[in-house]
Amino acid sequence: MAIAEIITVGDELLSGETVDTNASYLDGELERLGFEVRRHTTVPDEVELIAEVFRAASERADLILCSGGLGPTEDDLTMLALATAMGCVLTRHEPTIVAIRERFARFGREMTPNNERQAMVPERGEVLENKAGTAPAFRAELGRAVIYLLPGVPREVRYLVQKVIGPRIDRGAPVLYRRTVKVVGLGESRLEHEIQAVVDAYRDRVRFGYRALSIENHIKLAVRGEGAFELIEEVSSALRAKLGDAIFGTDADELLSVVHRRLVASGRTVTTAESCTGGLVAKMLTELPGASSFFVGGVVAYANRAKTTLLDVPSALIESEGAVSEAVARAMAEGARRRFAVDVALSATGIAGPDGGSEEKPVGTVFIALADDKETVCVRLQLPGDRSTIRSNTALALLDLLRRRLG
Amino acid sequence: MAIAEIITVGDELLSGETVDTNASYLDGELERLGFEVRRHTTVPDEVELIAEVFRAASERADLILCSGGLGPTEDDLTMLALATAMGCVLTRHEPTIVAIRERFARFGREMTPNNERQAMVPERGEVLENKAGTAPAFRAELGRAVIYLLPGVPREVRYLVQKVIGPRIDRGAPVLYRRTVKVVGLGESRLEHEIQAVVDAYRDRVRFGYRALSIENHIKLAVRGEGAFELIEEVSSALRAKLGDAIFGTDADELLSVVHRRLVASGRTVTTAESCTGGLVAKMLTELPGASSFFVGGVVAYANRAKTTLLDVPSALIESEGAVSEAVARAMAEGARRRFAVDVALSATGIAGPDGGSEEKPVGTVFIALADDKETVCVRLQLPGDRSTIRSNTALALLDLLRRRLG
Repeated sequence: MAIAEIITVGDELLSGETVDTNASYLDGELERLGFEVRRHTTVPDEVELIAEVFRAASERADLILCSGGLGPTEDDLTMLALATAMGCVLTRHEPTIVAIRERFARFGREMTPNNERQAMVPERGEVLENKAGTAPAFRAELGRAVIYLLPGVPREVRYLVQKVIGPRIDRGAPVLYRRTVKVVGLGESRLEHEIQAVVDAYRDRVRFGYRALSIENHIKLAVRGEGAFELIEEVSSALRAKLGDAIFGTDADELLSVVHRRLVASGRTVTTAESCTGGLVAKMLTELPGASSFFVGGVVAYANRAKTTLLDVPSALIESEGAVSEAVARAMAEGARRRFAVDVALSATGIAGPDGGSEEKPVGTVFIALADDKETVCVRLQLPGDRSTIRSNTALALLDLLRRRLG
Repeated sequence: MAIAEIITVGDELLSGETVDTNASYLDGELERLGFEVRRHTTVPDEVELIAEVFRAASERADLILCSGGLGPTEDDLTMLALATAMGCVLTRHEPTIVAIRERFARFGREMTPNNERQAMVPERGEVLENKAGTAPAFRAELGRAVIYLLPGVPREVRYLVQKVIGPRIDRGAPVLYRRTVKVVGLGESRLEHEIQAVVDAYRDRVRFGYRALSIENHIKLAVRGEGAFELIEEVSSALRAKLGDAIFGTDADELLSVVHRRLVASGRTVTTAESCTGGLVAKMLTELPGASSFFVGGVVAYANRAKTTLLDVPSALIESEGAVSEAVARAMAEGARRRFAVDVALSATGIAGPDGGSEEKPVGTVFIALADDKETVCVRLQLPGDRSTIRSNTALALLDLLRRRLG
């Protein structure tokens, strides 16, 4: 498989000011085009350093995409660095000068002299027109690699890859199939344990990866070559046989969108009664358009008196069991279901911390409940992490409870 | 100045699935600690490749921070790669085994055997306790560099850098002073216009930058060398004279934390009545510890019948004015204030889209209101962007209304 490397250039990418989103975008596109990206390198705006990285990459890779440092200012040095790596000089590219001048005229502005810098390119190579901006892109050969220089502006990078560079480097049908199988409610090590037999059976032919995201875990499958699609289908079935409905989706599916879809399909209405999550569950349920078809409203009952006045939780119950208890979680869900006259009510009460924990109920103790026309179910969770992690995992666990209930 | 390099490890960072945010965080911290970051490198989960990058970096840098690949699964190979680069073997670190087992016990789960992988470390070097997760961090010497291995989970990276690694590598006083002045409620071009005179007066000595974040804008100041602190103070005062209370804080201040602080100081209690924000405002008000001192609870009144039954908004008013109207926003805030018997009530009703807009009230039309013992104020907003942007900017505008009211 053809090997690619990505190089991004710019002081701002090394100072903590800018997160490099171009690299990740280029990864995805290169994979689609049949390349394996083996390395990213980010360097400051320094000619010698950029040139050195170009030379090193050109010994390892078939394709190098480099973004950044093609603008009109003095710290835009990528063209010069490429010329240095190639052992040639910069030359003035007249059609680019004309194009830049025309572009300025179109927006009713005059071209400032520093814009001519953008037309200075290595004497060996090909200028590629950039209709999305003023700085042209450039293609050259260096070592075993073909190298493309792109500007740093994400919009221009996208334009150039999709319209100009992509069609030229496309390796034909993708040779790598991937699938992400998404699981909720199992810890990473527990998950790995459960599927060990599947991994062992397929490890010679399938690459397995894991990613842990709070209470959500992703199993990543990658297969190269002939019969890859069928093999991924086979492994997915084997995983499903082991994990059942702990699997909530694949690839672009999100827990929230899956729940949203099932809610719409079920025709059922829902409400929320939240204490420790403080409105987060309601916020998530209303995140996607069309939420009004199932979500009537909800209550954030943070203080005990809100639990009694808005959700009819008996204050004697709060006193005897504590606000963080199974009995109160159940009463909150049942109270909300009655008040809002809906099919399903969700509730959460817990200790998100950092204070408020006790030996019996340490920080991270959370009770979540679901009440519908058949019964009320309640789950006690003991969640690790800080306040924000506990809150978001509580919300995810509650969405998952709803997902399983909706079937 | 001491040279640092950052290495991030993981297939997911090269496949377009994950944007690498750790690198940019580490940049900022290293700059603060007196290092110049000269290179980022990202490589897949492959022992030989990681080891090669370690060796190369250790010839150029004084400090290497590497994140990723310390978990319990088979594709976590960074410890092995470091041992390879150092020419030593991995050894079992008993205290880590004990710590992991205890951590599992604390959450009532049993440690699966693969977790022992996380206790296998190079025989030369120092294990650093990671209180934010199960995988320990590690420090070793390699070539001219000191190298630290960190997990890939951003929360754990932050904990380790701030609490464990930062204090050990701090190079003393920073040579570059920065300050971010944070503004809310002014557009970027309006803001630039307001402060033009200040920028012109100081531009030779101070570097100015802007960053637009939804309805929040940041002015970034940077000064190098002698007298830098005093100069930044002077510029800050000049900005404050121009912008008044549109400035809500500096540097680490967040609008939410400023509001939280002022609420606690004021002793006033607050409630929320939300329609289009669907619980987001309540969720934000309860994000920081101690929210129970001012937040009693709130209502998410998504459907009209929730507005009438839970907030006593007259249904005739909804019919005549529309659910998205100044009159309904006011009635929601006043109803919530009475129901919860609190000092201040916040409300929001609007069209977050993508559907539901009309010529008179297009998508992005939002009414926010604040009711207290003196009066009820209401602001009509016309917000650009998609559903999620409209919702989050509505919440920020409401928090800002509260901030200015609290004084």
